Formats: sequence, structure tokens, C-alpha cells
Amino acid sequence: MPARPQLDAQWSKRRTEKNRRLDLVRHMANGAVLPTGDIVAVLEALIAPGDRVVLEGNNQKQADFLSRSLAQVNPAKVNQLHLIMPSVSRPEHLDLFERGIARKLDFAYAGAQSLRISQFLKDGLLEVGAIHTYIELYARLYVDLTPNVVLVAGFKADRQGNLYTGSSTEDTPALVEAAAFRDGIVIAQVNEIVDDPADLPRVDIPGSWIDFVVQADKPFFLEPLFTRDPRLIKPVHVLMAMMAIRGVYERHQVQSLNHGIGFNTAAIELILPTYGEKLGLKGKICKNWTLNPHPTLIPAIETGWVESVHCFGGELGMENYVAARPDVFFTGKDGSMRSNRAFCQLAGQYAVDLFIGSTLQMDGLGNSSTVTRGRLAGFGGAPNMGHDPRGRRHASPAWLDLIETDDPLARGKKLVVQMVETFQGGGQPTIVETLDAVEVGRESGMPIAPVMIYGDDVTHVLTEEGIAYLYKARSLEERKAMLAAVAGVTPIGMTHDPANTAHLRQEGLIALPEDMGVNRSEATRSLLAAKSVADLVTWSDGLYEPPAKFRSW
Amino acid sequence: MPARPQLDAQWSKRRTEKNRRLDLVRHMANGAVLPTGDIVAVLEALIAPGDRVVLEGNNQKQADFLSRSLAQVNPAKVNQLHLIMPSVSRPEHLDLFERGIARKLDFAYAGAQSLRISQFLKDGLLEVGAIHTYIELYARLYVDLTPNVVLVAGFKADRQGNLYTGSSTEDTPALVEAAAFRDGIVIAQVNEIVDDPADLPRVDIPGSWIDFVVQADKPFFLEPLFTRDPRLIKPVHVLMAMMAIRGVYERHQVQSLNHGIGFNTAAIELILPTYGEKLGLKGKICKNWTLNPHPTLIPAIETGWVESVHCFGGELGMENYVAARPDVFFTGKDGSMRSNRAFCQLAGQYAVDLFIGSTLQMDGLGNSSTVTRGRLAGFGGAPNMGHDPRGRRHASPAWLDLIETDDPLARGKKLVVQMVETFQGGGQPTIVETLDAVEVGRESGMPIAPVMIYGDDVTHVLTEEGIAYLYKARSLEERKAMLAAVAGVTPIGMTHDPANTAHLRQEGLIALPEDMGVNRSEATRSLLAAKSVADLVTWSDGLYEPPAKFRSW
Repeated sequence: MPARPQLDAQWSKRRTEKNRRLDLVRHMANGAVLPTGDIVAVLEALIAPGDRVVLEGNNQKQADFLSRSLAQVNPAKVNQLHLIMPSVSRPEHLDLFERGIARKLDFAYAGAQSLRISQFLKDGLLEVGAIHTYIELYARLYVDLTPNVVLVAGFKADRQGNLYTGSSTEDTPALVEAAAFRDGIVIAQVNEIVDDPADLPRVDIPGSWIDFVVQADKPFFLEPLFTRDPRLIKPVHVLMAMMAIRGVYERHQVQSLNHGIGFNTAAIELILPTYGEKLGLKGKICKNWTLNPHPTLIPAIETGWVESVHCFGGELGMENYVAARPDVFFTGKDGSMRSNRAFCQLAGQYAVDLFIGSTLQMDGLGNSSTVTRGRLAGFGGAPNMGHDPRGRRHASPAWLDLIETDDPLARGKKLVVQMVETFQGGGQPTIVETLDAVEVGRESGMPIAPVMIYGDDVTHVLTEEGIAYLYKARSLEERKAMLAAVAGVTPIGMTHDPANTAHLRQEGLIALPEDMGVNRSEATRSLLAAKSVADLVTWSDGLYEPPAKFRSW
Repeated sequence: MPARPQLDAQWSKRRTEKNRRLDLVRHMANGAVLPTGDIVAVLEALIAPGDRVVLEGNNQKQADFLSRSLAQVNPAKVNQLHLIMPSVSRPEHLDLFERGIARKLDFAYAGAQSLRISQFLKDGLLEVGAIHTYIELYARLYVDLTPNVVLVAGFKADRQGNLYTGSSTEDTPALVEAAAFRDGIVIAQVNEIVDDPADLPRVDIPGSWIDFVVQADKPFFLEPLFTRDPRLIKPVHVLMAMMAIRGVYERHQVQSLNHGIGFNTAAIELILPTYGEKLGLKGKICKNWTLNPHPTLIPAIETGWVESVHCFGGELGMENYVAARPDVFFTGKDGSMRSNRAFCQLAGQYAVDLFIGSTLQMDGLGNSSTVTRGRLAGFGGAPNMGHDPRGRRHASPAWLDLIETDDPLARGKKLVVQMVETFQGGGQPTIVETLDAVEVGRESGMPIAPVMIYGDDVTHVLTEEGIAYLYKARSLEERKAMLAAVAGVTPIGMTHDPANTAHLRQEGLIALPEDMGVNRSEATRSLLAAKSVADLVTWSDGLYEPPAKFRSW
């Protein structure tokens, strides 16, 4: 062997640095418990300029006591942070950039803050590393984005730091593990600290992974992101839902699936017990779900359609209902739900037949994005679930049904359905010539255009006009023609020659409602198993407790 | 709303059944602790015919006390089990089928047992659900394969069932969670039970997820699967490793990567400190790894090439070395490694630039399989890491470097490299006209041929002849020609017209060693930073303690 080079003796710089920081705050802490009132000073001691900091903003659960406290640190002491956040959702998340505490952002989703991110980017207050899909962001925590500090939220902790997350476990385990096992610092805010470990309903994250817990000034904020009021479901949603059931779910025997947010998919959930029942499909389709606990799924659960639901996160108001249906939902020994976004995204990627989603803009090839001019909304889980997972090797009837060749090496395909009305409210076409994302990406200096779902991953486009079976397209030209044929009077739809419709229908490349046996006149709100939030409460035997803003009946 | 149908009052059948079974064995247990000697009777009580049972056979760690005990149950009481196993690796795993205790198998990998699985399948003793990639199998545990019983292995437990897995955490958390949170039964065998929870080095899995722990009759078996003796590395491996470094890693600026098992990749690891150093590549390539703790990576770590390694599992003998390098490896507060196959596979899928692997057979389009006649070896992690993850949205230099168009919506690509000698030992060609897998799949009635990595996912094929840059192919014909040009004198190589070579080289579609500045005469064993296992021990300052079978120096 060659002469052994002089080795660097320091193989534990991270551990030394962590211990140095912990020593700075030990006098303020009582073991693993930090005093609520000192949190700003503690953060100033534990976080160094330029640190990679994971701040738990999720779809639902927000470590908001910690984010509000971080926004109060002295920017002369703590600055230039590289924030890593699954979901940027609270005003103080952006205040961190305005105050110069944070500089760079890697994230997956931004809802209400998407306009402000876009503005800050333009103003040079913020630098975007990349927009990710959730599990891609977690994955990088174990490779090139290992965090120095992780700030998360739980429901209860004991004095050893054992953490009970309640039903919104969500992203927490994936975020904590990356720091806990690479000498990062983990701080969890909790609503309550119990003296006796036996008073924790269960342990979701062991205390040996957590450095400090701190009781928040008020319970963490939960966003009821997946609650859709059935009163806002229109007949066109019902028509599209009928087409989804007949033209996609029944046709391909879709047994496992994911639904996104939206009135379209809420309509599907609400007509399973009526329209689906009439078609005799119960037990044949839609059995295993990866899904947040959508209130609109209650009637389908109550009527026996649903064998299992694994959840990304919780949903405010659904706690008691979920706990009362353990055969369907994943719950712990204590009875409350365990959600887990990492595993649910994995399940939604590799183990389900179908993803069905919606978008703000789609082009003539089926590429879509929620990034539009002035809005950097991010992608969330859509890219992960809205593509054909090419590492999949097990078959299912739906997956096999999409094989279109005799090639002995042919494999099946995941169903990726885009379900969109051709026009948005306000008369904006959904189906456009060019995505705004192309221009936004160029202007912002992104290395690639921020596309949410790529057209070549989309197998079906479903509009109020009909379904384009894109997976059957034999050429790019044919693909365009099929999509245009169901694009209504949008700019893309106007490129369609109506004389070609009969041919496309005959070839089975597109289907109109009548081709699937869907009767337009049946498409009314009377098909909805629940027409209001109040109806959902009734279906749940009073177990579902809707948040105040949905209690308007 | 429609008249509410009569609801089934039973929403907790799984919990009731679990409690019924637990009650049968409580008198044998001391709280959560089962007596070692009664384990067969306990398994007969806790497992019912037809149950879905996850049995932890991993790449390394084996719940072998539990598998040996399960093989001893009375088949009249326990039979027709549906076994779900990441890795089928021990003789008793197959004995379960021979004795009629198990009937159906869903798995990801089978090493030493691949011949017997194939034989049992033929004999009708065993039915294969599907062959999976690891995280696909975990994913199904949360959708359509939720287990009734999960049998796992840990290092130590306390009397509340809190589990310390040691450095081979591997698949355990992903397997346990699926049962713990859906009223399945979880039993963990451990090497030692401690009375005082404080005597656990750390908690990897909380006791509230575990129903019973049992002290095994002897420590669980660990398979040193990733140890390669440098003495068996031949000059041809060194030549191929030089090409990989110059023609792939340097060329595309590969900073994060995964290496599989094999002498080819071991050679790459061992020439980084010599050949890579001479080329001035340190700090520019190969910084972040997703990898088992390969002993052959020690010299590269010691010379400062490696920033981080996240591990799927542990490797026997590497425990002390890993613990002494916490800046590089993921370790807990107790100092020992934390591996996690689910997260490492996620990282290897979504967060690294490159996967490089090998195979037993590859066809002229680059499709490959380890399933050959009479051998059902399974896929392990290869399909997951050996494809372009189409949900990825962040860029890296290597990923962007594979874009070949001006399309404004173009995205980058993961590098998927197949590194194979054109012939196997014994004169069998590696590159063949048709994969055995096609025939095996047909004969076994599989719904699709058991392909490990699909040709259209492969971006580079590297043989001792040169590199085919398949991602540049503009047509299927060109792709075939490129692969044939580096296929030597295999049947596929013989289809290559040597007159075409100059053209392919000129177009940059293939490269021979001289095209990459690789000097064949330098390709000797003297480039290896360690030439034996003893050398690796020396590099490690005596921290690496090779298993007995590698101590032959």
C-alpha cells in the first residue's frame, strides 16, 4: 500500500460543535426541558450564522411557537440561515427573510405564502435552492442537506424528551432522524410536558433523538387543508366524478389510490355511496387509500367502501372519527392516529394504482404547474405521486391494463390522471399554449422550468368534455390531438378539428360521457351522499367535529 | 342525503382479534417479556392460519431465532402463511414452505436461497406474490399488504419493549410501524434484555410499538454481505474503475452516489486515493454517499474524500470504525451507527447523482436481470436506485449534464450506470440476445418478465472495452449499435461492425480508454490503495475488525 498520508485527527467536529452549543444553554434548561420564556435566547445560543435549519412547517402541523421565536432573534447574532421547510405556510416564515435571519430556502410547498416568496425572490431578499417534492426534500437531509438544527412540534413530551405527536405525526420523524443521528440539535415544542412518562399516550419519537423540549405559549397551529365543503361542489364536478368512476376507476379496476385536494376528487368520494353503489362497484374499486383523513370520505367509509386509509397527516376535526374507525385508519395502542408523510408518500408512489390531481395550468402536451406568474406555490407531493415509478416491479390489474404492446419485456404503468375544468373561475383557461412556469423559471434563474407534473407522465386527462387516454397515444402529434379534443374552447381546444372527434372516439383514444355510459342529466348535486358539512357530521355519528370556519350551517 | 344504510357496528375487528390472541399468551409472559423456551408455543398462539407475517430477513440482520422457532410450529395449527420478507436468506425461511407452514411469498431479495426458491416454485410448494424492490415492499405494508404479525430482531431491549437495534437498524422501523399502528402483533428477538431502561444505549424503536420482546438463544446472525477482499480485484477491474472515474464521475461531476456490491465498484473505491488523487479530483467528485459501510471505502475516507455516508444497514466488523468517524457516518448520541434502509433507499433514489451496479445478464438494449434459469435471486434495491426518479425536481451539475435537448421543459436525468465485464467467469457471456428472465417469467406464470433494471433507464454501459453513453442515443437502433460496440465478443458484440466504431467515437456516443485519457498500462493492482483485508485494517488504525472468514492473511 502507498505511504499512509497524514490523517486529520478530527473526525468528530460536528459532535464537538454540538456539545459546545449545548453547554451554552444547559444552565437555562432543566435537563431536557427548556423554559418557555427563554426560548429566544436559547435559539440565539444554539443556532449559528449560516446554519442549515429545518423548520417544521408541514401541510397541517406548524412549529409556530419556534418559528415565531426564531423571527425574534437578533439578526446580528443569527443570520444567513439556510432554511429547509417542507411547507412554507406562516407569515413569520417569510419574516425570517425580511429580517435577514434567513437567506436561502429549500422547500416543497407554499400555500398562502406563495405570492410573498415570489416577491421576496424578485427583491433579492431570498434565494431559492430548489422546489422539491416532499420525500425528495427528506432524502436530501441524508445526503447533501444534513441539518445543523431541527425545530419541530409535538403534542406532549415527558421530561426525557420522549415525544407524542398526536395524529399529526406528518413529517416529524423524517426531519428529526436526519439531525438526531448526525450530531445536529433537535428542539421540539409541545403543548404539554408531563412529569410521568406513563402519562404519554404513546411515544412517537424516542427521547434519545431529542435534545430539548419546550412548552409552547399556545398549542401548535393546525391547518385544516383537506376539508372541502360539499355545498361548493357543482354539477360539473359531479359530471366529471361520474366520468372518473366509469371511464377510469371501473374501466381499469383501480383498487388502490391517492386523491389530492379539490372539489373534483371530493365529488368522487361523495358519489361512491350513490353512483358507485348503483353500478355495483363496491368491493371492486377504491379499497386501499393513501390520503389525508378527508371529511368527504366519511360516507364512503360508513357504507363499507374503504378497507384502509394510510394518512400523510391528520385533519383538524377528524381526530375522534379516525380513532373510532381503527380497522380503516392506522392508529396506535393509545387509539389515536399515526400519520407519517414519508411512508405515505412512499406508499402513494410505489404501492397504489392511481394518482388523480388537479392543476392551475396545463399545456397542450399535458405538462402542468402550480407555479404561475407572481406565485411560487411549490409542488408538495404531486411530483412524487404523479409519475410512473419506474422502480416498481409488482403488478396489479390496473397497472397491467395500461400495457399497450406485445413486447415480452413490457411493464405496466401507474395511472396518473389530471382532472381539470377547462376554465378556472374568472374565465382564465386552464389549458394553455405555454406554461407561465417556463417564463418564471427563466426570470428567476432556475436551472430548469418549475414543472409540477410532466406531460409524459400523465396517462389520462379528464375534463368536463371527456377523457383523453393519453397512454394510448402512438405519437406526440396524436397525444396533442387527443388532449385538444377534450380541451373545450381553450386556446388548445380551438386547435382541435371537430371532424376528427369521431375518429378519436372510434379508436378509443378519447371518450365522451355517452361513450362511458355516463348520463349527463344524472349529473346533479342529488348524487352527493352529503351535501354539506352538517351532513358529514351526521354520517359520522357526530364524531367529526368540523373547525369553526366550516360550521356555517 | 340518501337514507342512511344500516352500518356495521364493528369497526375494530383487528383490535379485538389482536387482544384475543394477546390474552392467550399473557400467562406465559412477564409483561412484555416472553420466556425464550416457550417461543414455539407463543407463536402457535399468536399466529393464525393464513396470516400475513413479516419475517425480518434483511441483507444483513436476521431474526433467526424467530425464524428457526417459526419453522418448529405445528403445521396443523399454523399454516398457509403469507410471508413477507425483504430478504430470504436462511435455510429455515424455505423450510417454512417445505413444512406447509407458509404458502405464499412476497419478497425483494434472495441470495443463497435463490436456487431453492426456484425449485420450490417449480414443485408447487411455494407461490410468489411478486418480487419487489425494498421500498416498494415496505410501501405495500401500508396499502394492500398490512401484516398481522411482524417478527424482527434487535440488539437490546428493556422490559417495556424499548428497542436498541445497534448499527443494523436496517429495515426494522419500516416493518414494525406497519403492524404497530394497525393492530398487528410485533415480536422482537434481542440478544439481551436489560432491567433498567437507562442501560439501553439509545432507543431506536419505542416500546409502545412493540408487543413482546424475547431473548434469543444466541445473538442474531449478521451477514457480512458488503465485504470484498481486495486480493480478488483483478487488473481488468482496475481498468474499468479508471474508466468510471474519468469517463463518468469526472466528466459529469458526480458528487453524490451509490455503489452496489462487487469487485468493480470496490476497485473504484480503492483507486480514489491514488488515481483520483493524481487527477486532482478530491473534493470535486464522490463526496456524499448512500452505501453500506464498505470496508473498501476506508482508504478514501481516511484520505478525506468522503463528506458523508448514509447507510442501508451495518457491516460486520465495521462497528468500531464507523463509531470513530461520526463526521462521516450517521451515529446516535450513544456513538453507534444508525442505519435505515427505508431512508437510505429514498436517498439513493431521490438525492444522489448516480447509481452504478452490475448484473448477471444484460441484453442488447441494456435490460438486465439477476433472475436466470434456476435462480430467482430477486432485485433488492437495484430497481429503486437504478432508474430515473421522475418525481425529482432539484438540479445538480451531473443531473443537468445529461440534458440533450433545447426544450424549455427539459429536465435532467439520474446517471444509471451498468458496469459489467462482457464475460462472466466460466466463459458465459454477460451480454446476451435474450434475458433468461423472459423465459423464467413465462414458465412461472409471472404477469411480467422479472427484469431488474430496464434498458431505457440505463444511461451508461461500461465494459472492459469502453463506455457507451446510451443517454445520447437518438434512436433505438443507435442505442443498440452503441451497446454492441462495447460488448466485446459476446453474441451482441459480434453484431457490431468495427467499421462503425470510429464514427461512434467521433460523435461522442462511445469512448474507448484512450478517448478518456485512460492509460491501459497503468491499470494494475498497484493502483489499489489497499491490496488485502489486512491493508484495510491498517488503514483503519485497527478499528476495522474483519469477520473470521476474511482473516486469511
